[in-house]
Amino acid sequence: MSAAVHHLPQADLERLLQQIFVRHGTSESVARTLAANCASAQRDGAHSHGVFRIPAYVSTLASGWVNGTAVPQVQDVASGYVRVDAGGGFAQPALEAARALLVEKARSAGIAVLAIHNSHHFAALWPDVEPFAEEGLVALSVVNSMTCVVPHGARKPLFGTNPIAFAAPCAGHAPIVFDMATSAMAHGDVQIAARKGEQLPEGMGVDRDGQPTCDPQAILDGGALLPFGGHKGSALSMMVELLAAALTGGNFSFEFDWSQHPGAKTPWTGQLVIVIDPTKAEGSRFAERSRELVEQMQAVGLTRMPGERRLREREASARDGVSVTAQEFEQLQVLAKG
Amino acid sequence: MSAAVHHLPQADLERLLQQIFVRHGTSESVARTLAANCASAQRDGAHSHGVFRIPAYVSTLASGWVNGTAVPQVQDVASGYVRVDAGGGFAQPALEAARALLVEKARSAGIAVLAIHNSHHFAALWPDVEPFAEEGLVALSVVNSMTCVVPHGARKPLFGTNPIAFAAPCAGHAPIVFDMATSAMAHGDVQIAARKGEQLPEGMGVDRDGQPTCDPQAILDGGALLPFGGHKGSALSMMVELLAAALTGGNFSFEFDWSQHPGAKTPWTGQLVIVIDPTKAEGSRFAERSRELVEQMQAVGLTRMPGERRLREREASARDGVSVTAQEFEQLQVLAKG
Repeated sequence: MSAAVHHLPQADLERLLQQIFVRHGTSESVARTLAANCASAQRDGAHSHGVFRIPAYVSTLASGWVNGTAVPQVQDVASGYVRVDAGGGFAQPALEAARALLVEKARSAGIAVLAIHNSHHFAALWPDVEPFAEEGLVALSVVNSMTCVVPHGARKPLFGTNPIAFAAPCAGHAPIVFDMATSAMAHGDVQIAARKGEQLPEGMGVDRDGQPTCDPQAILDGGALLPFGGHKGSALSMMVELLAAALTGGNFSFEFDWSQHPGAKTPWTGQLVIVIDPTKAEGSRFAERSRELVEQMQAVGLTRMPGERRLREREASARDGVSVTAQEFEQLQVLAKG
Repeated sequence: MSAAVHHLPQADLERLLQQIFVRHGTSESVARTLAANCASAQRDGAHSHGVFRIPAYVSTLASGWVNGTAVPQVQDVASGYVRVDAGGGFAQPALEAARALLVEKARSAGIAVLAIHNSHHFAALWPDVEPFAEEGLVALSVVNSMTCVVPHGARKPLFGTNPIAFAAPCAGHAPIVFDMATSAMAHGDVQIAARKGEQLPEGMGVDRDGQPTCDPQAILDGGALLPFGGHKGSALSMMVELLAAALTGGNFSFEFDWSQHPGAKTPWTGQLVIVIDPTKAEGSRFAERSRELVEQMQAVGLTRMPGERRLREREASARDGVSVTAQEFEQLQVLAKG
């Protein structure tokens, strides 16, 4: 019965996920980071980046494609520049290893950049930026992924779904946070639609012959996604390739070859994070100004702020526990043991 | 005969525009900066930001809304942070005044930010970022403008057209540059379509009653534009308000009141410029990587890179002179005298 739902405390879900990661070859430290990240996505109703991803994490670890025990090498490059070699491991532990230095530099220099390369990012991007806003900083991050998006005006896929995430503090509110694929849809949402046998809206993707399709399976079977917003979304996706790969020293979305690693699912690319200290220009005023903008957006009739659905789901999860389907829960328990 | 076209050397056009600016109340120095900016747009075929804008510059100066003789105050805030108070003048002289310091900081800290406030930006945004890429740096800029865009899901306009511009060096090529309004269309292009009596494609804007319209005049007469790409473009537009106004200390697009200045057309807001030194992570390799990306984009069938039309127009202008219609040329000559 996939409709039956389990509700469990976030800490329990994290512990279960941690067991799974360790059982399938990550270090304790990497397992903690990935489990917290994945449980947060599930908690916030971001299901395409929640426990849905676990089987793919497991098959990737089994394939030898990613280094689950990599220790990120942090390099203090300049007064506003931190570089991390993720050692062929996941991007989140690399961010965690560099985080304190990045924040220190942003507060001192006013702006700082973190360039991560040799990394695998297989998660939502908002968990990477939201914590900066929680401590009063403004953060922007981009990550490239794997070829599945046709550049506007081209015939074949080249770009990844290449998301952009942004977070800013807001007085009296949770931070303003958004995380958007520069593709018309996130890849995980296509997979979920395919699994449910649902059709997609028009304009999301093309089939293997380059013809428009609303069938998510046709997009997954040799087809591709389109960028959001035509040539503009396509230009932003190109920018993400330049910032997340060319600038960091990571792979472009089309460069890595995982054909020798059946089961590999995680893109081996790079990530850029820019953090700005808003007190440098406006003292403590930024969060108030941010709130004024939100109030004006509500005044012109906006009923749902970007990220608002996540916050509602987060509240519900805190109250009732994080929900996973009975089928997923069973699968997680099997993976934690075997 | 508006179809007749004059071709004149760029230097001559700049001189003529400079005369106009000075004649209508700017300092020599501000006139030089604005004339070079406007002539570059005309040269590159970006007609909505070329000489088309001159009558509005003139009426704005006449209205007392903008300070044409403002001297920007540059503040060295931190090792990666420069702030400029544009003094109620134009944004371009503010950028020019801070430029050398910004570049020095970007090369030293690895990244630097320029926060301009109390400024009027009435031009294309790509001329602000392209020169950084010409000296090997990566640049990103955002500027907010004036209420004319309905946030996705809202009923009334709030945001400006809020463009994002990006520039990066590319080995053996002109820099990769794009400049996109986060509205479905640039405001200048709506004005040009209205003037020509042309209809717009669907999805660009709404009339004064909030109903979808393809009539550019209905958008200008109390109607509004929509963001590009639905909720994603709308989130980016919100980000531009936060970065260009809240962060810099400038006005939001909906904050300034020019009702006491009939003829005023320039938005009194703020601008953010972020400059990154790509050599900090990848030595001299960035421009080569950038070129690899461009070559792969061409290999998948992309026939026109972002910004390519501008470069073609630029070459034609270098060869034949910058083209302005006979009507525009006549108008410029009148404005230079009176």
